[in-house]
Amino acid sequence: MIEPFAAVEVIATKRDRGELDDAQIDWVISAYTRGIVADEQMSALLMAIFINGMNSREISRWTQAMVSSGARMEWSTLGRPTADKHSTGGVGDKITLPLAPLVAACGGAVPQLSGRGLGHTGGTLDKLESIPGWRAELTNAEMLIVLRECGAVICAASPGLAPADKKLYALRDVTATVESIPLIASSIMSKKIAEGTSTLILDVKTGNGAFMSDPIQAGILARTMVELGQHAGVKTRALVTAMDVPLGLKVGNSLEVQEAVEVLAGGGPSDVVELTLLLAREMIDAAGILGKDPELALKDGSAMDVWRRMIKAQHGDPDAALPVALHQHKVLAVESGTMVGMSALKVGVASWRLGAGRSKQGEKVQAGAGIELHAKPGDLVSVGQTLMTLHTDEAERFPSVLDGLEGWVTIMADGAVNRLPLVVERIEA
Amino acid sequence: MIEPFAAVEVIATKRDRGELDDAQIDWVISAYTRGIVADEQMSALLMAIFINGMNSREISRWTQAMVSSGARMEWSTLGRPTADKHSTGGVGDKITLPLAPLVAACGGAVPQLSGRGLGHTGGTLDKLESIPGWRAELTNAEMLIVLRECGAVICAASPGLAPADKKLYALRDVTATVESIPLIASSIMSKKIAEGTSTLILDVKTGNGAFMSDPIQAGILARTMVELGQHAGVKTRALVTAMDVPLGLKVGNSLEVQEAVEVLAGGGPSDVVELTLLLAREMIDAAGILGKDPELALKDGSAMDVWRRMIKAQHGDPDAALPVALHQHKVLAVESGTMVGMSALKVGVASWRLGAGRSKQGEKVQAGAGIELHAKPGDLVSVGQTLMTLHTDEAERFPSVLDGLEGWVTIMADGAVNRLPLVVERIEA
Repeated sequence: MIEPFAAVEVIATKRDRGELDDAQIDWVISAYTRGIVADEQMSALLMAIFINGMNSREISRWTQAMVSSGARMEWSTLGRPTADKHSTGGVGDKITLPLAPLVAACGGAVPQLSGRGLGHTGGTLDKLESIPGWRAELTNAEMLIVLRECGAVICAASPGLAPADKKLYALRDVTATVESIPLIASSIMSKKIAEGTSTLILDVKTGNGAFMSDPIQAGILARTMVELGQHAGVKTRALVTAMDVPLGLKVGNSLEVQEAVEVLAGGGPSDVVELTLLLAREMIDAAGILGKDPELALKDGSAMDVWRRMIKAQHGDPDAALPVALHQHKVLAVESGTMVGMSALKVGVASWRLGAGRSKQGEKVQAGAGIELHAKPGDLVSVGQTLMTLHTDEAERFPSVLDGLEGWVTIMADGAVNRLPLVVERIEA
Repeated sequence: MIEPFAAVEVIATKRDRGELDDAQIDWVISAYTRGIVADEQMSALLMAIFINGMNSREISRWTQAMVSSGARMEWSTLGRPTADKHSTGGVGDKITLPLAPLVAACGGAVPQLSGRGLGHTGGTLDKLESIPGWRAELTNAEMLIVLRECGAVICAASPGLAPADKKLYALRDVTATVESIPLIASSIMSKKIAEGTSTLILDVKTGNGAFMSDPIQAGILARTMVELGQHAGVKTRALVTAMDVPLGLKVGNSLEVQEAVEVLAGGGPSDVVELTLLLAREMIDAAGILGKDPELALKDGSAMDVWRRMIKAQHGDPDAALPVALHQHKVLAVESGTMVGMSALKVGVASWRLGAGRSKQGEKVQAGAGIELHAKPGDLVSVGQTLMTLHTDEAERFPSVLDGLEGWVTIMADGAVNRLPLVVERIEA
């Protein structure tokens, strides 16, 4: 095969603040996937993109080229409208767990491809893998069966889905080219477009515990992704939501599954319930489903039924006791007053260091490790009261985790609670 | 060994327009040489440097770190002042060939490490290798013997000299990070500093046939390198010289050796003689040699004597007939008038395509291929007159070379010759 471009010319175009044309983008993604463009060439191009940016045509074509690097899934035989959600990741963000069965209970089909965690935000698959027997890896045929039988499936993406993105993601991680809106947006959207969903709701987190801590940047990322989705024929909306404080009261793997089950049982912390319902209503509405009330589906047990069937279909036991960590440590209040703030980042990092997360791909995580919060901002607390319980299988982790938690919470005799509203911005094309 | 930095942090510093501190620079060059920093990480850093630049402290430290990646040569036992010249490369630039023996004849010691050509400018070693028997590869001990016996040696750099630069140079070539003043300056100067010369004259070419076609950019590069040399204790000066028109009348390998020998014999084209003498005077003066006239050393045959001894010491036969290409093609004038301009670039590319140069490292070059010019700008020419002769061993190369020569020369009934002065700028610390 004669290559129509030279990598050096494509790199030089972006290096010199030029625009990459469609043919250059198609070629560079394809040639990188085929191994014709080497890692060191792609990383030079990624750095040039990081610094000099891409316009919306370039981002859209880049995304499309990544979709085209692999197979695109297709769900037209299901006879139900597909709807999916993607979160950019937050501390205690277990929303996918109750949300997918809830939307299925309302008549949607939810083909939810998820990932494992890296860094201080957890991964949906890591959480579900704390359920005894549950399997994340499904073939496309198995995925279709679960989706048809349960209305929802949460599983790992097959290696054939947007393989260019997989290769690029690993490269960006080691070359300081992660935090670029064009590269983040195209990475997320290429997977979601390839997944074949017809509607997509994006939950773009902002605040100290989020990848995009600045709400303005989070809004730009959200708009970029909505535009990419619309351009690829996926009905896409985005909510920019608060991640300055952890979601709910439990952070970890089995701990978050517990909380998700509480929500599916009609209980659970109010912020988790509220965000789950908000996202469910967006998905149902975008999918064109009429006359369904997700709040009712939580109350009447129909969402829980879907959850149980879905877990069983993936070889999990929904009745099994969830793993509990071997060691606990209570963190007590050292002053009395109103809790006016809590750092989602510090709580997330603590949970990660307790063993709930991994530092590099392939590392094992502890099923039971994590954090239970016993108070949240707005609550009155007294000296000596337990504010949180740390869980880990390795007690030697406690001292450094406690060091890292220095300043995680602010308690004042008087003072207003200072936190972001749950929904900062809503974006629809 | 515990690494004191993470590559990602160093890359991110430069990506975000920060300054790299000395310890970061020392580490990243050492870790790259040791294979701890991967090619894809270094290429991301190189692109960030290309776009965001380095200040003079950073460039100086970067250069020093590359010198420290290998051995630094030392010539104090010679008892003669060392002087070296480096040219950034031009078309027909065979100046090193007569210059090294000329300066040696005047009492200097010239430890000239040279390279092979890549692209449209030739390499000194490729030229000398057209002399039957001549060998470019010497051990350090052999180099010292030749230098002691002849006063000059022109040979290949040993792999132990600035190995970081060797690795970086190959990487820059495939990642569109070549044309960066900090990276060019540090690459050239790390080799020259490691070579151990005490004085260095830089010939920075400018004009269409040069790497730095813009005289202003060439001046910046020259000043950057002079500063780097002074900082490393090497007495460094630079001339920015014309490369809008080829130097001399012969371009190629054995063709340029022929012309160098003409100069050493007291003849040769006036521009080659003038530049050789200018550079020789700078080297002699910088080295502190008094009362020597290089013009006399050309006239009285003493420079030729050094040449013959130097060629013989490296197993070459100075009396052997030089290779001649198998095929010739004459290019005739299609109009009459004054030749007012000639493109050094087009002549250089034509010589390269005739077989005198290589497109990638390791390719063989033809000893006899190249171009003989029969007229230069300023000359009056008539229709049908031979303007140049193309030489190659492969006649099938002629048609595409002739296509590429379209517009190589400008002939006008009346019009002033438009060319750069031989010396555009002189820079001394």
